[in-house]
Amino acid sequence: MDTARHYGVVMPSWIVSQAVIIAVGSELLTPDRLDTNSLFVTRALNELGISVRYKTVVSDDCDDVGLALKSAIRHAELVVVTGGLGPTDDDITREAISNVFGLPLEEDSDTAVTIRSLFKARGLAMPDINLRQALVPRGAIQIPNARGTAPGLWIDRPTVKCLALPGPPRELEPMFERIAQDRIAPLSEGRSIFRRVIVIAGRNESSVDDIVCPIYSRWRSAPVPIRTTILASLGQIELHLSVVGKNKGEATIALDCATEELRTVLEKDLVSVDGAHLEDVVGSLLCDRGCQVTVAESCTGGLVTSRLTDVPGSSAYVRAGWVVYSNDAKVEILGIDRKLIEKHGAVSEPVARAMALQARARARVDYAIGVTGIAGPGGGSSEKPVGTVCLSLAGPEDQLWDRRLNLPGERGRVKYQASQAALDMLRRALLE
Amino acid sequence: MDTARHYGVVMPSWIVSQAVIIAVGSELLTPDRLDTNSLFVTRALNELGISVRYKTVVSDDCDDVGLALKSAIRHAELVVVTGGLGPTDDDITREAISNVFGLPLEEDSDTAVTIRSLFKARGLAMPDINLRQALVPRGAIQIPNARGTAPGLWIDRPTVKCLALPGPPRELEPMFERIAQDRIAPLSEGRSIFRRVIVIAGRNESSVDDIVCPIYSRWRSAPVPIRTTILASLGQIELHLSVVGKNKGEATIALDCATEELRTVLEKDLVSVDGAHLEDVVGSLLCDRGCQVTVAESCTGGLVTSRLTDVPGSSAYVRAGWVVYSNDAKVEILGIDRKLIEKHGAVSEPVARAMALQARARARVDYAIGVTGIAGPGGGSSEKPVGTVCLSLAGPEDQLWDRRLNLPGERGRVKYQASQAALDMLRRALLE
Repeated sequence: MDTARHYGVVMPSWIVSQAVIIAVGSELLTPDRLDTNSLFVTRALNELGISVRYKTVVSDDCDDVGLALKSAIRHAELVVVTGGLGPTDDDITREAISNVFGLPLEEDSDTAVTIRSLFKARGLAMPDINLRQALVPRGAIQIPNARGTAPGLWIDRPTVKCLALPGPPRELEPMFERIAQDRIAPLSEGRSIFRRVIVIAGRNESSVDDIVCPIYSRWRSAPVPIRTTILASLGQIELHLSVVGKNKGEATIALDCATEELRTVLEKDLVSVDGAHLEDVVGSLLCDRGCQVTVAESCTGGLVTSRLTDVPGSSAYVRAGWVVYSNDAKVEILGIDRKLIEKHGAVSEPVARAMALQARARARVDYAIGVTGIAGPGGGSSEKPVGTVCLSLAGPEDQLWDRRLNLPGERGRVKYQASQAALDMLRRALLE
Repeated sequence: MDTARHYGVVMPSWIVSQAVIIAVGSELLTPDRLDTNSLFVTRALNELGISVRYKTVVSDDCDDVGLALKSAIRHAELVVVTGGLGPTDDDITREAISNVFGLPLEEDSDTAVTIRSLFKARGLAMPDINLRQALVPRGAIQIPNARGTAPGLWIDRPTVKCLALPGPPRELEPMFERIAQDRIAPLSEGRSIFRRVIVIAGRNESSVDDIVCPIYSRWRSAPVPIRTTILASLGQIELHLSVVGKNKGEATIALDCATEELRTVLEKDLVSVDGAHLEDVVGSLLCDRGCQVTVAESCTGGLVTSRLTDVPGSSAYVRAGWVVYSNDAKVEILGIDRKLIEKHGAVSEPVARAMALQARARARVDYAIGVTGIAGPGGGSSEKPVGTVCLSLAGPEDQLWDRRLNLPGERGRVKYQASQAALDMLRRALLE
């Protein structure tokens, strides 16, 4: 979420074909919206061996879309335009493509019939403006849209291809996949980008870097070179490994070897090798061991339990959880000894421990997490500043694990990092 | 999150100055990362009366950054570059600026001293490579960085200004604010963009549009024209109103009048006029009324309580919450009658009602929410498909409110929409 660095070979342009992504939409230039389609498009292109050279967001202005298109076709072999194919005057992608490629717009009678019948099927009169969606730059290939009225467009020129797709993800994604193999894959002549995402917990970025750097510097000059990116986000580090090539078997072996090397040096700090998050990994471990978990939460306010239940099938191992936000609730609902709170404070190892033990007994499960802390902005003291969090985990046969954390950042970040640490504590206990 | 449409005047270029934002970083061209700095920069520029014409993400490649810069300085009065100012070979923003503006890089001795002393203070030896951060294109103004070693850069040319800032948000944001008034505000000659964000719940986008469209079509041609954007996200609709002008008083009056008109037609569906989310609004209402709330959650798994406790100061009105995920937990922990579950099923109005009533009695609070449903992907039936959610709210004097929802989408979306509906139900009850 915060920082990212790349190591290893910069991909020379001859290794893969390059694409430019243009997102069209004035709303994407406000402080409130991001172009998230480009993430899907990037992933899908990468799988077909095509990397993204740059991406641009432009407004619903025909000239600006035209400028972006002109620049893109000079710098890439494939241009993917998303958005601006709707029926209104704001939707100017068709016009911009027509202008830049010098292809006059013509009404496609089949598409016009299709659009008319879609409206008829819904019992609606079709406003004439919708016929704009039947306009096609001469010679362009239309891509059917099973979930909307706007077809996509494919322009095939000797030096560059241009793909235009509607903005709604549920329309765009199946349309992309429909033409991926036939039209896009041939551009990279069978090369693909193979990736592996390694998730690491319990270490910061520079500590991961110190351990791993000597290893991945070797990978750069290996027979199958591996490119590495390190990404730090709240409470975890990700290493993204990628190999570009035609030979899937070769790439898989290289990535498998690399992953094993990382497993050896990172030991239990390695959470997953397929990008799976802590809640997914914890879920699989609980399923494998036939164990159940409960959580007694104070400062995280339900977030740990909510994350555990984000995983499909989590009802197999989550029975119940408690949020005991006030001292009274800790005493009355969870049966924590009031004297314990008076003696040590609500944010203390003894209280976290009592929360875990009480929750475990009440839910009759194998593992219980207790979380108590100061999420802020108020409530901190010099002895226990904002970000102080006490975690306790009670396991089978009265095993107990404790941790005290000092977490940086505002309320939301403290809550999230505490939930990461709680899930990671459970993960490590399950591995013991 | 899904769709957005703009209404009203398209801002002519003479109304406001225009900027281009360039984000530098190869990691921002992978399927896993978005350039989120541009949201902060856009908001900050808008407040200073500057709109964003387009934005581009480029890799850590000096030529590509150069291409993006050359295009930007032809199309905008201000170019904001984020990232690429670090100490490593990958950090090429300084070089690209030097090339494009024809300003040779020179070491700034003061900056070199500062960087050396930062390392010394941490007891570290400074790698020579860090002196790259002391390089300044001749004549550029350096912007001090209180939270890192990379200073920012400001290039002042008669027709275009260029601002380069480091990528980490905690460094970038204060640096931007530091120079905003003195250097950036003058570009728009005192004009600003004034905004108001209206949050609406309980209606879909087209229903909001039907009600509101006749109103905001009038605003376009008002003496102080108001531009409107409608944004639909999970379980809520936002209307963004904006006025461009020099006169804050005039803009405020226009926006106040517009907001009052919306309040009249939207009635209780209007959640907030300052962009506040449901959990914030519910929190304020609970504080005002001196009431407390508890939640008994099944399918939302703690999400409703977690969102309530996302609000600073929520310990004043959240005492406790329960996650009762299994039928046994509902019976044993919350005291739901097992026969009720057997008769109606766990996902039913009677069980939601019993959950709310039991939670309210146990937590001894004024309001209690019960949520039970099928988040999917498993567990659905033809009678109760995935997305079926029963909500119940128990209030003072044994008041009871019920709702049954059929929510679309995958597990995470069902959970979130259910939490939106639960918070909205409480909000409406508090307004009664």
